[in-house]
Amino acid sequence: MAEQEEDVIERDEDDYGLDPKLVQSILDALSDGDAARIDALMEPLHAADIADLLEQISSSERRALVGLWSKGIDGEILSEIDESIREDVIEALPHDVLTEAVRELDSDDVVDLIEDLEEPVQERILDALPDSDRVAVEQSLTYPEYSAGRLMQREVVTAPEHWTVGEAIDFLRTAKELPDQFYHVILIDPRWHPTGYVTLGKLLSSKRATPLKDILEDSFRTVGVMEEEGDIAYAFNQYHLISVPVVDEDDRLAGVITIDDAMAVLDEEHEEDILRLAGVGEESSISDGALQTARQRLPWLIVNLFTASLSAIVISQFQNTIATLVALAALMPIVASTGGIAGTQSLAVAVRALATRDLTASNARRVVLRELGAGLLNGLGLAAILGIAGSLIFGAPLLGLVLGLAMVVNQIVAALGGVLVPLALDKLGLDPALASGTFVTTMTDVMGFFAFLGLATVILL
Amino acid sequence: MAEQEEDVIERDEDDYGLDPKLVQSILDALSDGDAARIDALMEPLHAADIADLLEQISSSERRALVGLWSKGIDGEILSEIDESIREDVIEALPHDVLTEAVRELDSDDVVDLIEDLEEPVQERILDALPDSDRVAVEQSLTYPEYSAGRLMQREVVTAPEHWTVGEAIDFLRTAKELPDQFYHVILIDPRWHPTGYVTLGKLLSSKRATPLKDILEDSFRTVGVMEEEGDIAYAFNQYHLISVPVVDEDDRLAGVITIDDAMAVLDEEHEEDILRLAGVGEESSISDGALQTARQRLPWLIVNLFTASLSAIVISQFQNTIATLVALAALMPIVASTGGIAGTQSLAVAVRALATRDLTASNARRVVLRELGAGLLNGLGLAAILGIAGSLIFGAPLLGLVLGLAMVVNQIVAALGGVLVPLALDKLGLDPALASGTFVTTMTDVMGFFAFLGLATVILL
Repeated sequence: MAEQEEDVIERDEDDYGLDPKLVQSILDALSDGDAARIDALMEPLHAADIADLLEQISSSERRALVGLWSKGIDGEILSEIDESIREDVIEALPHDVLTEAVRELDSDDVVDLIEDLEEPVQERILDALPDSDRVAVEQSLTYPEYSAGRLMQREVVTAPEHWTVGEAIDFLRTAKELPDQFYHVILIDPRWHPTGYVTLGKLLSSKRATPLKDILEDSFRTVGVMEEEGDIAYAFNQYHLISVPVVDEDDRLAGVITIDDAMAVLDEEHEEDILRLAGVGEESSISDGALQTARQRLPWLIVNLFTASLSAIVISQFQNTIATLVALAALMPIVASTGGIAGTQSLAVAVRALATRDLTASNARRVVLRELGAGLLNGLGLAAILGIAGSLIFGAPLLGLVLGLAMVVNQIVAALGGVLVPLALDKLGLDPALASGTFVTTMTDVMGFFAFLGLATVILL
Repeated sequence: MAEQEEDVIERDEDDYGLDPKLVQSILDALSDGDAARIDALMEPLHAADIADLLEQISSSERRALVGLWSKGIDGEILSEIDESIREDVIEALPHDVLTEAVRELDSDDVVDLIEDLEEPVQERILDALPDSDRVAVEQSLTYPEYSAGRLMQREVVTAPEHWTVGEAIDFLRTAKELPDQFYHVILIDPRWHPTGYVTLGKLLSSKRATPLKDILEDSFRTVGVMEEEGDIAYAFNQYHLISVPVVDEDDRLAGVITIDDAMAVLDEEHEEDILRLAGVGEESSISDGALQTARQRLPWLIVNLFTASLSAIVISQFQNTIATLVALAALMPIVASTGGIAGTQSLAVAVRALATRDLTASNARRVVLRELGAGLLNGLGLAAILGIAGSLIFGAPLLGLVLGLAMVVNQIVAALGGVLVPLALDKLGLDPALASGTFVTTMTDVMGFFAFLGLATVILL
C-alpha cells in the first residue's frame, strides 16, 4: 500500500488525455512484471485513453501489457483503438475475451471496428456475435464505405404521429432496450416514413396532453443511406444539428446519426486534408514503423523527383548565362523559394475554403482576382526589398531589377496556382487537397527559375 | 407566378450548403431590384446559408441585398456571419433592426457576436440589450478570450441531489424559461457545486420514484471557467461528451458547454493549424480583399526572403565549383526540392499528431527514431533512382554518386527536421504549426545545396 501511494500521479488539472508520466509509471510496472500496480494505475483511465496508451507504446510492450493487465480489453477500448494497431491487438486476444468484448458493442460500433480488418479477422469477430447482431452488421457492411448507412446506428426511438407527450413518456418508461444516447423521438407515419422529431427537452417540459405534432423542431431534416459522411458532417456543423434520421431508398427510417459520430468524421476529414496537402497517405499513423512510414511517403517523393527534373531542364537551358555570371546560380533559389511559400499560402486558404464550402462557383471568379491582386501587391513589395538589397549588396542595379521583376512574375504565378489548382481538382471531382502542394511548388519552382534566368539573359548579358 | 416557377432551383439532394445557382438567381433579382423575388428565393434558406450568401457576394451587393430584403437580418443570421464581414453588416443595419436582432440571442451568442468587434460597435450592441442581459454579457467578457467562461452558456438546468425523476419532470414542466438545447439535468449540492448529471433519455425512461442519484452518468466531469477552449474541444472528442458543466474558482456551477460549441471550436482549431502551417494569418477569410490578403501574407514572405538568403550564401561559397561544372547548378534544386517535400510530409504528420495528442513525451523518442529510419530508407530509394538516372543520362557515374549521397543526407535532415521543429515549438509552449513550414524548408534547402555542392567539390573536382 505504501508503495502504491508513492505512485500517485500529480498532474495538471487543465490537461486532458493521457499523461506521459502515467505512461512511464505503467511501463515501469510492466518491466517489473507488477500486475497489481498495472491494474491500479490503469483503473481510473477512460477507454479512449487506454487506446491511446496502447498506440503510444511499442508493439512488444503492447503485447506484454495486454497479457498482464487483469481487467483486459473490453468492447469500448477495442472500438477506440486506431486502425493501425487494431489487428495487432485483436490477434493477441484470447477467443473468449474477444467474444465478450464485441458482444458489448452496438451494431454500428462493430461495423466501425471491423470494416477495415482483413477477411479472416473480420470472420472471427462476426462469429463471436449473436445471429441477430451478425445480420445487422452484415447488412450495414452492404452500404459503401463512408456512407450514412455505415455511420448510422440502427437503434432508433420512434413514436406514431398522433401520440401525445404522455403516451410517448409512458412508452419510453416501459421500453425494454433504448439506445445509450438519443436526443430526439422521431415521428413516423404508418409506412415508417419519418415526418418530424421532438427533442427530449421539449418532451420533458410539455404537458402530458400536448400532441407531439405541436412541439416539432424546425431543424428536422433527413439524410439518405447512400449520402457521404463528409457531407453529413458538414450539415451537422453548418446547421447545428444534434441527430439526424437516415432514410433508405423508399424514404423509410433506417437509422439515426448523432453529433458525436459527425464530430469524429469532421476530425478525420481534417486529418485527410492536412496529410493529403503534404503528400502523405491519410492512413498513416503515429504507431507505424519506419518501413511502413517510408513506403507511404515514397510515391509522392518519386513524383517530385520527376517534377523537380523539370526545373533542372529549365535551368540547363541557361547554362551559358550561368557560366557567364555564376552569382545567378546563388540567387535563383530566392525567387523560387519565396514563390513556393506564396503558393502554399494561397493553396492552404483555397483548400480550407473549399472544404468549408466558402469557396464556390459563386465567388470563384472574385477569389481568383483577389489572389491575382494579392500576388501582384506582394510581388511588388518583395521586389522593392530585393531590388534595393540586390543593388546595394552587389552594386548592380540591373541585377536588382532582374530579381525584382522575376519576383513579381513568380508571386503572381504562385497566388494564381494556389487557387486554380485546387479549384481544378475540385471541378474534376477529385479532392482539392490531393497533392496540390506538389503541383503548386513545381509551378513556382519552374517559373521562378525560368523568369529569373530568362530575364537575366535578356537584361544582363 | 409563372415567372416564379421558372426560377425553381433544381439541385442535387445530396448537397448541403448554399447552391451557386441560387446565389446567381438572387444576384439577378438584386440587379433587377425585384424585392418580391428576393424574398421568395431567400425564404427557404437556413440562417447559416444566408450568412454564407452574404460572405460570398461583394460588399456593394451585400449592402444592396440587406436594403432590399424585406425580412431582414435577424439574430440567428448575425451570429452565423463570419467575423470578416460582421462589422460591415452591423453598420449597415438600422438601429431598430439591430436592437431586435440582438435581443433574440442567448447571452453566449451575444458574447460570440461582439467579442471581436471594435469598441463603438460593441457599445452599440450592448446598449440594445436589456440591463440583465447586458450584465451577463459584460460578465462573460471579463473571462479571457478562448476560455471556457467565454464559450459557455449561462442558462443551466439543475436539480437538488435528493430529487426523484418525478420531481425533476414536474419542475421541468413548470419551469418558465428553459434553454433551447439541453441534454442533461445537472445535480447540485446546497453550495451550488455540481455533483453529477442525468441524461434526459434516462429521465424519460426511468420510473417517477427513482432517485436521480441512482441514474447518474459515468461520463460526468466538469471544466474550469479559465480552461482553454481547445482543450475542452479535445475532451469532447476524446471522451464522447455531449455537454459539460463549467465551474468557477470555487467549484460552483457557472454554466454549461454543449457539443455543438465544441464542434465549432474543433473546426476553428483545424483552420488555425492548416493556415499556420502554411504561414497565413489565421484570421484570413475568403471575403477579404486583395490588399488585406496581401498584408496577411507578407510577413512570412519577408521572413522567407531572409531564410532563402541563407541558401544563396551557401551556394555562393561554391561559385568556383559551379563555374567548373555548370551542370551542377541545374541539378542542385532536385536535392533541395525533394528534401522540402519530405520535410513537409514529416511535419504534417507530427503537427497533426501533436494536435490530437497522439505524439507525447511518451513516444517522442520512438517517433523521432522512426522518422530517422524512414528518412534513411527513402533517401536510399531516391538515391538509387537518381544515381542510376544520373549515371545513364549524364554518363557520369561519379555525378550520380554525388546526387545519391546528397539525397540520403537531405532526406534524413528533412525527416528529422519535420518532427523536431514542431516538438521544439511545442516544448516552448508555442503552437507547433506556427511557421514550422518555413523553418523546415529552410533547413532542407540549405542542407540540400550544401550537401550536393560540398560533395561535388570533394568528389568531382
